[in-house]
Amino acid sequence: MTTTHPARSTPVTTIHTSTAPFSGPVRPGRSTLTPLDSSEIRLTGGYWAEKQRLNADVVLRHCEDWMERIGWTGNFDRAASHQAGWVHAGIEFVDSEVYKLLEGMAWELGRSHDADLSSRYDQLVYRVASAQDDDGYLHTSFGRPWQPARYSNLEWGHELYSFGHLLQAAVAAERTGIESALVDVARRLADHLWVEFGPDGRVAVCGHPEIEVALVEFGRALDEPRYVELARLFVERRGRGLLAPIEYGQEYFQDDVPVREAEVLRGHAVRALYLAAGALDVAVETGDDELADAVRRQWEATVARRTYVTGGMGSHHQDEAYGADFELPPDRAYSETCAGIASNMLSWRLLLQDGDPRYADLIERTLFNNVMASPREDGRAFFYTNTLHQRTDGVAPDEDELNARALSSLRAPWFEVSCCPTNVARTLASVESTFATKTPAGLQVHQYGEFDVDTTLSDGTPIALSVRSDYPYDGAVRITWRDDTRREVDLDLRIPSWAGSARIEAPGQTPSVRDGRSTTVRGRFAAGDVVTVDLPMQARWSLPDPRIDAVRGQVAVQRGPLVLALESTDLPDGDVNDVVVDTSVEPVTTERGATVEVSRLAAATADWPYGEPGDATGPLGAVTLVPYATWANRGPSTMRVWLPVARVEG
Amino acid sequence: MTTTHPARSTPVTTIHTSTAPFSGPVRPGRSTLTPLDSSEIRLTGGYWAEKQRLNADVVLRHCEDWMERIGWTGNFDRAASHQAGWVHAGIEFVDSEVYKLLEGMAWELGRSHDADLSSRYDQLVYRVASAQDDDGYLHTSFGRPWQPARYSNLEWGHELYSFGHLLQAAVAAERTGIESALVDVARRLADHLWVEFGPDGRVAVCGHPEIEVALVEFGRALDEPRYVELARLFVERRGRGLLAPIEYGQEYFQDDVPVREAEVLRGHAVRALYLAAGALDVAVETGDDELADAVRRQWEATVARRTYVTGGMGSHHQDEAYGADFELPPDRAYSETCAGIASNMLSWRLLLQDGDPRYADLIERTLFNNVMASPREDGRAFFYTNTLHQRTDGVAPDEDELNARALSSLRAPWFEVSCCPTNVARTLASVESTFATKTPAGLQVHQYGEFDVDTTLSDGTPIALSVRSDYPYDGAVRITWRDDTRREVDLDLRIPSWAGSARIEAPGQTPSVRDGRSTTVRGRFAAGDVVTVDLPMQARWSLPDPRIDAVRGQVAVQRGPLVLALESTDLPDGDVNDVVVDTSVEPVTTERGATVEVSRLAAATADWPYGEPGDATGPLGAVTLVPYATWANRGPSTMRVWLPVARVEG
Repeated sequence: MTTTHPARSTPVTTIHTSTAPFSGPVRPGRSTLTPLDSSEIRLTGGYWAEKQRLNADVVLRHCEDWMERIGWTGNFDRAASHQAGWVHAGIEFVDSEVYKLLEGMAWELGRSHDADLSSRYDQLVYRVASAQDDDGYLHTSFGRPWQPARYSNLEWGHELYSFGHLLQAAVAAERTGIESALVDVARRLADHLWVEFGPDGRVAVCGHPEIEVALVEFGRALDEPRYVELARLFVERRGRGLLAPIEYGQEYFQDDVPVREAEVLRGHAVRALYLAAGALDVAVETGDDELADAVRRQWEATVARRTYVTGGMGSHHQDEAYGADFELPPDRAYSETCAGIASNMLSWRLLLQDGDPRYADLIERTLFNNVMASPREDGRAFFYTNTLHQRTDGVAPDEDELNARALSSLRAPWFEVSCCPTNVARTLASVESTFATKTPAGLQVHQYGEFDVDTTLSDGTPIALSVRSDYPYDGAVRITWRDDTRREVDLDLRIPSWAGSARIEAPGQTPSVRDGRSTTVRGRFAAGDVVTVDLPMQARWSLPDPRIDAVRGQVAVQRGPLVLALESTDLPDGDVNDVVVDTSVEPVTTERGATVEVSRLAAATADWPYGEPGDATGPLGAVTLVPYATWANRGPSTMRVWLPVARVEG
Repeated sequence: MTTTHPARSTPVTTIHTSTAPFSGPVRPGRSTLTPLDSSEIRLTGGYWAEKQRLNADVVLRHCEDWMERIGWTGNFDRAASHQAGWVHAGIEFVDSEVYKLLEGMAWELGRSHDADLSSRYDQLVYRVASAQDDDGYLHTSFGRPWQPARYSNLEWGHELYSFGHLLQAAVAAERTGIESALVDVARRLADHLWVEFGPDGRVAVCGHPEIEVALVEFGRALDEPRYVELARLFVERRGRGLLAPIEYGQEYFQDDVPVREAEVLRGHAVRALYLAAGALDVAVETGDDELADAVRRQWEATVARRTYVTGGMGSHHQDEAYGADFELPPDRAYSETCAGIASNMLSWRLLLQDGDPRYADLIERTLFNNVMASPREDGRAFFYTNTLHQRTDGVAPDEDELNARALSSLRAPWFEVSCCPTNVARTLASVESTFATKTPAGLQVHQYGEFDVDTTLSDGTPIALSVRSDYPYDGAVRITWRDDTRREVDLDLRIPSWAGSARIEAPGQTPSVRDGRSTTVRGRFAAGDVVTVDLPMQARWSLPDPRIDAVRGQVAVQRGPLVLALESTDLPDGDVNDVVVDTSVEPVTTERGATVEVSRLAAATADWPYGEPGDATGPLGAVTLVPYATWANRGPSTMRVWLPVARVEG
């Protein structure tokens, strides 16, 4: 393994075109690690710059065009018109998709100041702002004479959920300094919420958490403690049965147990994760260590017992929910893209508080194998759910029609409930924000790739370095200092939990490393100094805990941070459902995946599938495994991450 | 094994108190096997008489009381009142529950002529009849000015589904000769349907099949070919996209592929099975062998690849649907009770046509392990879904409240959608109808237990015999002739597919037997002659087909026709989720179940469940397995049918 592969680096130019300082999505009032300003870290090439450019060039526009075409943005115009009886387009909470798009556009604008994007953004903000009521309320589905009354359906209406996304879009506007009317709109809305739901308002919560995490960050951005207090009230009220019973049980919206008493995340996965992120934010701002401990405990239990190998969360289609402990069926994995994004929101907040690299490990796993599985290579179609085993080819979705969430094996351009595409958009627009942090002692690198960091420590010590690698395909990372640090600083480098044989070399030292920990390289660095990290990219078997019944007797193959998958496209005669893998032959690492030796089960001919079935197989030879996130980019296919192990005779 | 265990027979007296001849639920116009009249076969004791008596004494009344209390029967009174704006109780199709109850009451009345039951039945029929419109239409949820218009929501309204159950109730009334007004009500309704949906009516189908199977049988009962023709139209119209698209796809209501072209049952399991039963009936009455072959082929593919070891069908909670081939997760098994009942409706019709004992095999499996898992031992609570792996204790349902379908590990007294209890009621009231048939050559015994048969063959040859056994717990069956047959006749005895070492002894002969086939005992039998069948009841391992990923590396234990289960109630410290079984020690057969040797996995302590997990175990010794259908009768528990096999070292 060599240290760099410049020929294989993706030739993407720097997207950053402005040097105006601007801050990022999460700014806790206190934390162990300090996030970098968004203007202090810039993707320069490779995997992530390519994805971020795809987002800027394609995904944002795709979301805009779809929502314009099907009337979701038009809802705001109709609301502003004050004409009677207009018909709302889409389900109740489509406002939130417009807000997530605005958030994504804002992060992109903060970086690029692209004139066309800026103009589109301003127009969209204007349309949203025009729909705001005089008292600050802003929703296109509720409150008009022919619509349900405001707050008449807190269980399912998603009103406060939508407001939360508006507030998060306003945070992006505020932090990037793009002078958007959205900040005032959000402030008036938040003040309205304070009146309606604050200490003198109704004692209620929204069926879909999101307002909590949004209120805290908006309160941080505007230095307004009332907003944090309102978030605290929402967190404390939950788990006390304020929401009416539903068929899925109160745990569906985490109204079964108070947040500080819960042992594990449960119910609807996105709801649970947004709530946990908001609860941690509240805990941080109020110094509530008990609440923070509860969230930390829930994260640990959830990761240990309710998380797919891809980082995906959610085992049930029916209620988009976590299953019981170790209930992780690959073929019914829901693993909603939004749950992966929400999981990273939570892990990032915990990482900032604790500095523990395990949170960065999960962020890496979830980004590469869950979130990035969603967008198609061309950025014009998305997975909503992310199964780990596709049994049938399914039907290619219509590229011009709204799609149901989980009927096809192919990504779809838009959905009736389309939370995932806009969530991907806002995530990609700010993805580098979690790649590095700083402390008074130095810099922490949590994720690898190609990016530049230019920051200063609290005493003014300059930190300027370039990270270069063809990660995640190549494990050779080269970090070059571009400025003299003038004093001894710490460079903390995350060694992923899968990287037992990692090596680090720095000027005059070869520090010892341990997987799952950070390695500190301490020194006074001069411009031109190079630190290299060598992470093992040899494909490896992963065995499931024996309690995960659904994948007993099966193995997954991982390669660096990537979970690999067998896709029928790579099989000679096309079906992954009757293939077994020979684990006596080690997987062979390839440029972006691996090959393994497989055999095929004899054809299924029994008239009853229980008894003493045989296990006869015919060898198929070596087959290619591809990065899971890239599957179904070559047309309809069957696919599986977990490969049944051939029964060893004798 | 001895031939009889009189001391262990359940001391239940004969329920039959009338000798008036009456016919049964299914009377094809042509068939290989001829069903017995319901008055020609009588349960006399044992397992089934006990269940049928529970049905008569408890279940029917339970259904009546619940539907009275929550206003479902009251809907008919309100409809009859013609007052404006009355509020309908329950979801759109609760009429159908009243009809299924009426069907169950009718079969019971045909047998018992119980005066109290007769009076209750007549009153209920009167209330239903009073709600019929002048043109024959009869539905409490549609057609009034404040309700949705008739046939305005064929996808979800279940109007024709409800009508089908009314027609089936009328068939029971007609066949048992109880002189019910329901027959005329049904005739007027069917004539209305002929106008609305017949050759000159709208070209449409109902989202939930059921009207097809009901129309054919009602047409048979009344000798009215128009009803069969209407059923034929409904069958032929389906699969052509007449129903509007829904999120679950057109296969949900089998509107994806024409019935005669489909290869396997798919979509919503109860819908698929009712439709297949109706399609076979149509094929029989119209001589459409191609259609019959299609249904037969679908049955075969479904049994071979989409059926649980319990006979249960339906792998998805979300859409109550079949999964893909071999997608049979035990912990998310839906296996709706109604699907088991519908499966037996189909298998019974195929058995009558083909005479192949494989259909009777599946009926036996499904009755004992799926349908009979539903009612609680006291007959006052029911499973709607029948999971094969209960991971958590769940919450005991409120005995006085309506319940959601699948939230608890305990049976619930009633459900918001309560199709299963009334379906159990009508099934138990006529369960013996599938136990034996006749041909000109003799009698076929398909199911074992305790019952008497008194019939005559087509040439007047009398067949009178008593079947006695403590089946399904004991495999010794003693068949005693009570009359001289006067000529040589065939007694065909089903040898279940699991009974490889079965033995049959008859006067002067010991016929050879083969599992999965029927054995013919041919002879001129005299009163007092005894034929014995000895079926092996040794508990046995069953291994799953290697394509059933969800139970790979696991075994089930079966004992005779019973699938056994491990319930936490029988474990020293109560959790089935970390137990592994030692398959090197054979299971030990007990009076009603078995014991197996198990060990317990070491406590789960890993912070991430993928990698190189250990499999350390501590021995627990022998534990008891109980008949699956009896689980959760001792309070909340965890339970599993499939037991992970301990990894053999070295």
